[in-house]
Amino acid sequence: MENKFLAYLKEIALLSEAGGLAEWDAQTGMPEEAAEYRAELSSYLAGQAFDKATNQTMIDFLTYFKNHPEELSEFGHSVFEKVKEEYDLNAKIPAEKYQKFSRLTSVAHSKWLEARKQKDYKLFKEVLEEIIAFEKEFIPLWRKDEATPYDVLLNQYEPGMTTAKLDLVFEQVKLGIIEIRKELAEKGTPPRTDFLKRYVPIPQQRKFVTQVASDLNYDFKRGRLDDTVHPFMLDLNRKDARITTRWDVNDFSMAALGVIHESGHGIYEQNISEKYDYTPLAGGVSMGIHESQSLFHEIIIGGSENFWSREFPVLQRLTGDVFEDIDLTTFYNGLKKTESSLIRVEADSLTYPLHIIIRYEIEKMIFNDNLDLNELPRIWNDKYEEYLGIRPENDLEGILQDVHWSGGSFGYFPSYALGYMYAAQLYHAMNQDIDVEEILASTDYRPITNWLTKNIHQFGSSKKPNQLIRDATGEELNPQYLIDYMRSLYFKVYGI
Amino acid sequence: MENKFLAYLKEIALLSEAGGLAEWDAQTGMPEEAAEYRAELSSYLAGQAFDKATNQTMIDFLTYFKNHPEELSEFGHSVFEKVKEEYDLNAKIPAEKYQKFSRLTSVAHSKWLEARKQKDYKLFKEVLEEIIAFEKEFIPLWRKDEATPYDVLLNQYEPGMTTAKLDLVFEQVKLGIIEIRKELAEKGTPPRTDFLKRYVPIPQQRKFVTQVASDLNYDFKRGRLDDTVHPFMLDLNRKDARITTRWDVNDFSMAALGVIHESGHGIYEQNISEKYDYTPLAGGVSMGIHESQSLFHEIIIGGSENFWSREFPVLQRLTGDVFEDIDLTTFYNGLKKTESSLIRVEADSLTYPLHIIIRYEIEKMIFNDNLDLNELPRIWNDKYEEYLGIRPENDLEGILQDVHWSGGSFGYFPSYALGYMYAAQLYHAMNQDIDVEEILASTDYRPITNWLTKNIHQFGSSKKPNQLIRDATGEELNPQYLIDYMRSLYFKVYGI
Repeated sequence: MENKFLAYLKEIALLSEAGGLAEWDAQTGMPEEAAEYRAELSSYLAGQAFDKATNQTMIDFLTYFKNHPEELSEFGHSVFEKVKEEYDLNAKIPAEKYQKFSRLTSVAHSKWLEARKQKDYKLFKEVLEEIIAFEKEFIPLWRKDEATPYDVLLNQYEPGMTTAKLDLVFEQVKLGIIEIRKELAEKGTPPRTDFLKRYVPIPQQRKFVTQVASDLNYDFKRGRLDDTVHPFMLDLNRKDARITTRWDVNDFSMAALGVIHESGHGIYEQNISEKYDYTPLAGGVSMGIHESQSLFHEIIIGGSENFWSREFPVLQRLTGDVFEDIDLTTFYNGLKKTESSLIRVEADSLTYPLHIIIRYEIEKMIFNDNLDLNELPRIWNDKYEEYLGIRPENDLEGILQDVHWSGGSFGYFPSYALGYMYAAQLYHAMNQDIDVEEILASTDYRPITNWLTKNIHQFGSSKKPNQLIRDATGEELNPQYLIDYMRSLYFKVYGI
Repeated sequence: MENKFLAYLKEIALLSEAGGLAEWDAQTGMPEEAAEYRAELSSYLAGQAFDKATNQTMIDFLTYFKNHPEELSEFGHSVFEKVKEEYDLNAKIPAEKYQKFSRLTSVAHSKWLEARKQKDYKLFKEVLEEIIAFEKEFIPLWRKDEATPYDVLLNQYEPGMTTAKLDLVFEQVKLGIIEIRKELAEKGTPPRTDFLKRYVPIPQQRKFVTQVASDLNYDFKRGRLDDTVHPFMLDLNRKDARITTRWDVNDFSMAALGVIHESGHGIYEQNISEKYDYTPLAGGVSMGIHESQSLFHEIIIGGSENFWSREFPVLQRLTGDVFEDIDLTTFYNGLKKTESSLIRVEADSLTYPLHIIIRYEIEKMIFNDNLDLNELPRIWNDKYEEYLGIRPENDLEGILQDVHWSGGSFGYFPSYALGYMYAAQLYHAMNQDIDVEEILASTDYRPITNWLTKNIHQFGSSKKPNQLIRDATGEELNPQYLIDYMRSLYFKVYGI
């Protein structure tokens, strides 16, 4: 019976894989006029996978193993638990309701685009209200024992995370960053950054980022790099985890750090144990843990002077005389300049968590305090002024900048900050076992990849995020590691 | 009920489309280590499509409409007929038997590769014998009213074609070509060809072939060009018909004529009427008709001096001074040089049909006369000597050169020659309506594309090949058009 169950799950996994390929192709090079036909294909594949995940056959399997748990192996049991969890999430919303919601989000996406064009939140407000109303209807259906409505949403992206915990953690991070920023402003010397805008042709950038991703042990025999408008990693299976990037000839660091980031996601998928293949335990466990891997690569590794002591000469060699007059420290310090900014995706690694905390606080107000949506832009702008000292001049550089809410993805934002805190905590734990900076100064980063594989990657979704972090680092999420890391890094860059 | 039937067929079509995308991706850029996972995906998708095409639901539909034909619209009826035809082909072989055969062909492919390496047919003979034994078992199951066993195979690629007909046609073509070759040898002057080997970098070739394909009205908004070892066209749907090519820096004509060929396949698919979408009537009707479109473009258009009067200057402009000293006629005559050769895929457009006729005669002997397979290489070599005046020195340049037999594709080869004869016949018919050469000398080839769409493309698989040719040209297949075409073209090139 277990084998039948696994074979059934494999069908779902294969349908999702086909859907993933259709999605990757649509983003990377599908002929432009094929979009409508592709929508038919994608929706058929998704529908088939969803149907198999919720139909009577699935219900029969779940009922059977609930009554005969002794027939499951240990492996089968952990698969069963995960399947049941996903089933509960999927099946509790009536299909008809869910379809209405899907249609609404696709309308909302257009409205969001239109509102951006007009830089006017009012054009988006009404549909946002409808989306929130749907979510508020769904929350009681999903709710198990979560303390507040927003906890329910949070849990979908980071199982086990709570607002009680996050409130404390984010407060600590916020105060830590504000304190660091104060000291940098009073005593620090901002680094030179002009050379970062020097012209680097895309073929040279491509060679460089491909080299760097390979050095980081992103395996191009089990992945590939393509160009897209929005960068992403998409894994079809553990031997096919593809990444994408965009390019700016006047800002090589965009593609360089972007590719390092996506490589981190890809390396995670490439190193999940084979035994989870074709089950819901294959694939990264949560958004937060996935971001911990991408941000470990982008920020911790990509923010290490030792790393650049190896890679900057490669960049210099590949770009002729472009960076001939720039020494390593000038280069590195320039990369790490910090400055208040209005747009989250352009933020540096010191101010970034503040952008997330603002969103977290607002989302919590929406779901736990029934915030009046007319107030959103004002609250948003006030918070930017309070935390970052700058105020958006219009809704496009404020409340309308992120796509997430138009898709109903509330509770997603904290993952970015969680990932960053996990990354710093993993960096600390890793340093107990190996000398990370020494390795980054060497020509072989495998000890780092191996450490991450041993402690994180291999487990796929078989451990919950908090368990994974506890096992890997010996303690619960602790934001102090991030604060210490940022303090020491930025004080050095700013010559304090 | 008809709508339910069509919805069911749409599922089969979508599964095939997903399989097509997986195949395209596997050929064009899938990470190399992902092959095994991809095999799982492709085989699942193919299995699902095959299951739906032969399961009880399908049988119920077929039975229902057999008993209630009055419930089918005219459109539904023609779909039903095609589905029934495919069902009969698929369902008459027991599934278990067919799986054995599939496994055998995959073994055979490896044996064929190994035999090629050793240039030794004996290493391939045994498995070839097994494949033929399977086919001989299948033939009685497939057979309806075909006159000979080989007719059954022929019909699978070119419905309605018979050996009785082909014997006459091929005899006429063979004698025609032999006669032309004799006259060229006696009275002609072979053109100069040295410049065809001049170095042209791939980016320049890519620009050129992309321009030419666009000029021919291959629509890049509904297609794309990629690099593969073996060129092909693969259509996911009428708005997504993709082509591929390979490149040789010392033979630009390989990619140029190859892309023109694949464009011809792609243009066919891009112009099939929308009304056949997601039914088995979408897509080209037969191998022979498909080749008629690719060869019309590659040989008729790509063999027209008027065409090159427009396109050769483009090539000259894109390649700097490479062809500066070559005039149009020298260029064109060089392209059209004819010469005996041992390898079919490298043959020129005069000798090509002889390669096909040799294979046809041998396949017929295998299935209708129970040829001793030990005799194959000798017979092959004798025929090359007799028809082309050259004899293979080993099995690699003889009997082992084609992949088809290792996959059990007997009856396929004649399609290539049929396509060529159809192309010449269509050229003749087209000239009754429009001045083809005048159009090729102009900057707008649309009248040619439109003529082909009106007479061939739009119908998809809704007309049988012979009906299509009859309606388009006013008569049955008539090889004389090809012979006349070749005679006049080659006499001009050889200055007779």
